[in-house]
Amino acid sequence: MDCLSRRDLDFVLYEVLEVDRLCGRSRYREHSRATFDAVLDTAARIAAEQFAPHNRLADQNEPRFEAGRVAMIPQVKQALQAFCQAGFIAASFDAGLGGLQLPVVVAQAALAFFKGANIGTEGYALLTIANANLLAAFGSEEQKRLYLPHLLSGRFFGTMCLSEPQAGSSLADILTRALPQADGSYRLAGHKMWISGGEHELAENIVHLVLARIQGAPAGVKGLSLFLVPKFLVNADGTLGARNDIALAGLNHKMGYRGTVNCVLNFGEKEGALGTLVGEPHNGLACMFHMMNEARVGVGLGAVALGYAGYRHALDYARTRTQGRPPAAKDPRSPPVRIVGHADVRRMLLAQKAYVEGGLALCLYAARLVDEERTAKEARERSRAHALLEVLTPIVKAWPSEWCLAANDLAIQVHGGYGYTREYPVEQLYRDNRLNAIHEGTNGIQALDLVGRKIDGLPVLTVEMERCVEKARRISGLELFAEQLSEALQRVTGAAESFPRAVDAALANAHVFLELAGHVVVAWLWLEQAIVAARALESAAGDEEAFYRGKLQACRFFFRWELPKTEHWHRLFVDPDTTCLDMRDAWF
Amino acid sequence: MDCLSRRDLDFVLYEVLEVDRLCGRSRYREHSRATFDAVLDTAARIAAEQFAPHNRLADQNEPRFEAGRVAMIPQVKQALQAFCQAGFIAASFDAGLGGLQLPVVVAQAALAFFKGANIGTEGYALLTIANANLLAAFGSEEQKRLYLPHLLSGRFFGTMCLSEPQAGSSLADILTRALPQADGSYRLAGHKMWISGGEHELAENIVHLVLARIQGAPAGVKGLSLFLVPKFLVNADGTLGARNDIALAGLNHKMGYRGTVNCVLNFGEKEGALGTLVGEPHNGLACMFHMMNEARVGVGLGAVALGYAGYRHALDYARTRTQGRPPAAKDPRSPPVRIVGHADVRRMLLAQKAYVEGGLALCLYAARLVDEERTAKEARERSRAHALLEVLTPIVKAWPSEWCLAANDLAIQVHGGYGYTREYPVEQLYRDNRLNAIHEGTNGIQALDLVGRKIDGLPVLTVEMERCVEKARRISGLELFAEQLSEALQRVTGAAESFPRAVDAALANAHVFLELAGHVVVAWLWLEQAIVAARALESAAGDEEAFYRGKLQACRFFFRWELPKTEHWHRLFVDPDTTCLDMRDAWF
Repeated sequence: MDCLSRRDLDFVLYEVLEVDRLCGRSRYREHSRATFDAVLDTAARIAAEQFAPHNRLADQNEPRFEAGRVAMIPQVKQALQAFCQAGFIAASFDAGLGGLQLPVVVAQAALAFFKGANIGTEGYALLTIANANLLAAFGSEEQKRLYLPHLLSGRFFGTMCLSEPQAGSSLADILTRALPQADGSYRLAGHKMWISGGEHELAENIVHLVLARIQGAPAGVKGLSLFLVPKFLVNADGTLGARNDIALAGLNHKMGYRGTVNCVLNFGEKEGALGTLVGEPHNGLACMFHMMNEARVGVGLGAVALGYAGYRHALDYARTRTQGRPPAAKDPRSPPVRIVGHADVRRMLLAQKAYVEGGLALCLYAARLVDEERTAKEARERSRAHALLEVLTPIVKAWPSEWCLAANDLAIQVHGGYGYTREYPVEQLYRDNRLNAIHEGTNGIQALDLVGRKIDGLPVLTVEMERCVEKARRISGLELFAEQLSEALQRVTGAAESFPRAVDAALANAHVFLELAGHVVVAWLWLEQAIVAARALESAAGDEEAFYRGKLQACRFFFRWELPKTEHWHRLFVDPDTTCLDMRDAWF
Repeated sequence: MDCLSRRDLDFVLYEVLEVDRLCGRSRYREHSRATFDAVLDTAARIAAEQFAPHNRLADQNEPRFEAGRVAMIPQVKQALQAFCQAGFIAASFDAGLGGLQLPVVVAQAALAFFKGANIGTEGYALLTIANANLLAAFGSEEQKRLYLPHLLSGRFFGTMCLSEPQAGSSLADILTRALPQADGSYRLAGHKMWISGGEHELAENIVHLVLARIQGAPAGVKGLSLFLVPKFLVNADGTLGARNDIALAGLNHKMGYRGTVNCVLNFGEKEGALGTLVGEPHNGLACMFHMMNEARVGVGLGAVALGYAGYRHALDYARTRTQGRPPAAKDPRSPPVRIVGHADVRRMLLAQKAYVEGGLALCLYAARLVDEERTAKEARERSRAHALLEVLTPIVKAWPSEWCLAANDLAIQVHGGYGYTREYPVEQLYRDNRLNAIHEGTNGIQALDLVGRKIDGLPVLTVEMERCVEKARRISGLELFAEQLSEALQRVTGAAESFPRAVDAALANAHVFLELAGHVVVAWLWLEQAIVAARALESAAGDEEAFYRGKLQACRFFFRWELPKTEHWHRLFVDPDTTCLDMRDAWF
C-alpha cells in the first residue's frame, strides 16, 4: 500500500494547482505531464521498495554512538543511494548543475512519498537539499564549485547547525565564535545541539552550515554570521583532505523520528574547526532563514505525509476488520460488520481525510508559490507569490504538525488496542509526527513569527481567499460554504486589525491567532478542492464519481466540524483574553 | 518531586469534598483526618521510593516471553510487595477481611500517587483490587474463602478476561465456551486477548475472571457467564494444587504502559481449564460490569495522574530553564528569563493545570459517590449517588484520557526538544497515557454507553450543577461563571432532549455528546473549586493566598478557553449534523 493516494496527489497537482501549465514557462519547457508522472512513479516505487521496508527496523535499531562514530543499520545508506542516483536531491536544481530542473511543487510532491514511507531516512535528504539550495543562493563561486555538485549528487550530505545547549528558540544567545585567519578563513569553536544528520557515514563528507559570531561582533541576532564547516576539508582539486576539528559529543535519543541521527557536536575542541564565511558578515540569520523557510515547508509536508500514511492504514484496517453491528441490528447471530460501517469510525476517518488532504493541498500550494516566485512572467506576480509564501510559511509548518498529528491519534483509535501495539505501523507514525511541532522553530515560535513579522502580508492572502469565495458563490451546493468562508475570513482580518490596540495581549495570544488563521486557510483550500470536484462531478461516473463525492464530503466535514472552532479562537484574540498574561508564577 | 501536588489533593479531599465528614459514619468511625493523612503520606513515600525509581527502567526493559513464562525486571515485584504490605490492596475493604476500611475516595487518592509514579507497575494492583471487589460482591462463600484473603494480602493477583481476537469492543461475539462438569465446576476453552497481568511471577497465583459461554447458552451478551479460573488450582485447605490448563500464547508489545505485561492466553488447549461459576449463569456481563465500572474510574484516575506528573515536570522545567526575553526587552545583552515568564508558556502550563486539577476533582468526586452509595444514611441519598455514578462513569473514564493526554502533549511542548527525548520523563508519560482512551472500553464505546444507556441519569446530575450555579451567583467575582455554567448546562439538557427526535444521528454523534457533557461537568467541578477558593481567599495570605488565586485563575482559564467549545459541540449534536452518517465507504 502506498503511503499516500496517487489519485489525490494527481487531483491536487493537476486539477487544483494545474502544475502542467508550468511547462509553458521557459525554465520548465523540457517538461510535460508525462515527465512529471514518471518522476512521481519513480518516487513511489523507490519509496515502496527502498524506504518503507526498513522504517520499523530503523525505529527499533536507532543509530548508536560507538567510539566517536555513529553506527546504524545498512539499509539507510542503500535507500539514500537509490534516492540520490534517481536524481531526487537535485530534482529542482538547474540542468546546468546536473539537476532535473523540475518545478519545486513536483519535486516536493515526489518527496512526500519518501516522507510517508520512512521519514527518518528521508530526513538526511531534506537537509541536504536545503543545504544545497542555501549554497546555490549565497555561496561564493569557490564554495559552489567545491561543494554544490557533490551535495547534488549525494556524495556529500548537509546539516544546519543553529541551536546550542543554552540557545534553542533564542538564537540571539548563540555563543559559538569564529576567529578570522590570515587567509580569510575562520576557526570556529562552540557547542551545537540538536544537529540532525550531524555525524554518520552515509556520505563521504558532511557539509555543516553553522551560525556563529565573529570575534567582536555585536550581541544578539544581528551579530550572527553563517559558515560552511565541512567534516573533511576539501582540497582545491576537490579531493578530501584532513578531518576537521569537529567532535561528536553525544546522541539524543528521541521518542520517534529515530532513523535520523540527532547529535551534539563540539566544534573546535583543539585548534578550531576550519570554516569559510557564507554571504556577508553579521548577515548569517538572513541566509539561514533561506534554508529554514524551505525546511519549514519540508516539516509541514513531512507532518502531512505521516498523517496521510496513518489515514491509509486506518482506512485499510476499517475496511477489513469486522466488529459489532449497526444500532438497528438486534439479532446477535447476525454477522458482524466491517467497522467502516460504524458512523463513529467514519467520523474518525473523515476527520483524518479532512486533515491530511487539506494539509497536502496546503503544502503543495506553498510549493507552487516557490515556482511562481521564481518563474512567473510579471514581477508583480513574483512579488505577490513571495508575499503569500511569507505569510503562509508559519501556517504550512505549524498547521500540519498539529492537525496531522491529530490524524495519527485517530488512526490509532480506529485500530483499537492493535493500534497501540508496535506490531502495527500507526503508533510509530504518531511518535514520529510528534517532533514536527518542535523542530525548525516550535509552533509557539511560528505563532510569534506570524503575528510579529508576517501579519502585514495578510491582505494579499485575503485577496486570494475572496476570489475563491466569489467562485464558490456561483456553484450550486457550495453557496453556504462560500458564505461561511467569507465570515471566517472576516474573523482573521478583524483579529489582525485588533492587534495594534492590545499588543501585549495579542503577542501573548499569538498561538490562538495561528490556530485561527491556519483553520481558515485550510478551509479555503478545501473550498478550492470542492469547486474543482463539483465541476468534475457533472461528467464523472464510477470510481471517479466516488472520488469527487469524497472530496465534497470531506469539505463538508471541514466546514461543519472544524471551521466553527474559529469563532471561539477569534473571540479569545479580539476581546482579548488576558488570562495567561495575568497568570503569575507563584499561582501555579 | 512528587508526581502530584499534596496541597491540591488536600484541597480537593478536605476543602471541596469534605471527606473528613465521612468519619461521622459508622463504617469509618475508626478513622479521622489524621489516619487519612497518614495513609496519603505512606502512599507518597512508597510511590517515590519504590515505584518512581524503576518507571523508566521498566519502560526500557519491558516484560519478555521466555519459554512460556514472563520475565521482567525484579524491581516490579519488590515495589508491589511494599505496596501490598502497607495494606493498599485491601485499603477500602472491611476490617473483618483484613482491610483498612478506608473510604473509597481516600483509597483512590492514595492510588493516584502510585499511578503517577509508575502506572505500569501500579496496573497489577488496580486489576487485583477490582478483582477482589467483584468476588466480594458476587463470589460464593467458597470462592471468597479460597481466594479473597489472598487477593487482599497480595499473595494472589487478579485479571479480567473479556476480549478475544475477534471480539474487542463487541462482547456479544465472545466464543470461549464452558462445559459443565459433574461436580458443578466447568472446563473452559478459548482464546483471550489483551489480558493485562495475564501471566507473571509477581504473585503465587493469578485469579482470572473470565467471560465465557456455557454450552447451549443464547447468542449475544445475554449468553455470557463469568468464571473464576485460577492459574494454579487451589485445594480446599488453601494450598496450591496443579497448574491449570492456561497457556501463554504471546505478549503484545505496546507503545507505552510497557511495565504492565499484556498477554494472549489460550484456555483449555488440553483437557480444558477448570473454573467455577461466579454469580448466576448467563448473568456474567452484569457481574463483570461491577469490575469494569471500577476499572473505568481507575483508568480515568490513571490518566489524570499521568497528566498531573507531566504538568509537575513541565512546571519545574519552566521555572528553571532560561531562554529568550520578554517582547519589551530590546537589548540582547539583557539576561534571558525563565521560560515561565513567557505568556505562551504560561498558557501551556495553565491549560495543563486546568485539565489535570479538573480531572483530579472529577475522579475523586466519583470516588466519593461510591462512598455515598455504600454508606449514606438515607436510601434516597444512596440511590442518588448510584444514579450520579452511573451517568458520570463514562465521563470519568473518557474525559481525562483525552484531556490529560492533551496535558502530556503540552508538557512535551514546554520542554521543547528535550521533551521529545527519552532523557526526560514527559515523552514516556505521553506514550503511557495514550492507552487510556482505548482500554476498558474505547472512548467511542463510552460515548455510546452515555447516550444509549446512561442519559436517563442526566436530571439528577443537572440538579447538582444547578445547586452549584446558585451558590456561585452569590459570590463576588463568580457571577459570570455561574451564568456561563448555567448556559452550558442548558446545552447539555437541550442536546439530551433532542436525542429522541433523531436517534440515528444522535448515536452517530454520540462522541460529540460525550465531549459536550464532559466539558460541562468539569467546568462545574472547577466552579465548585472556585467557590471554595473565593471564600478561603478572604482570610488567606502568602503561599495560601497564591494557591487559591491559582485555583481562581485556572477556573477562569477553563471558562474562557475551554467551556466555549461546548457551543460548537452542542450545535453539531442538536442540528444534528449527518456528515459522518451520510459518508460512504467508496468515497474515502
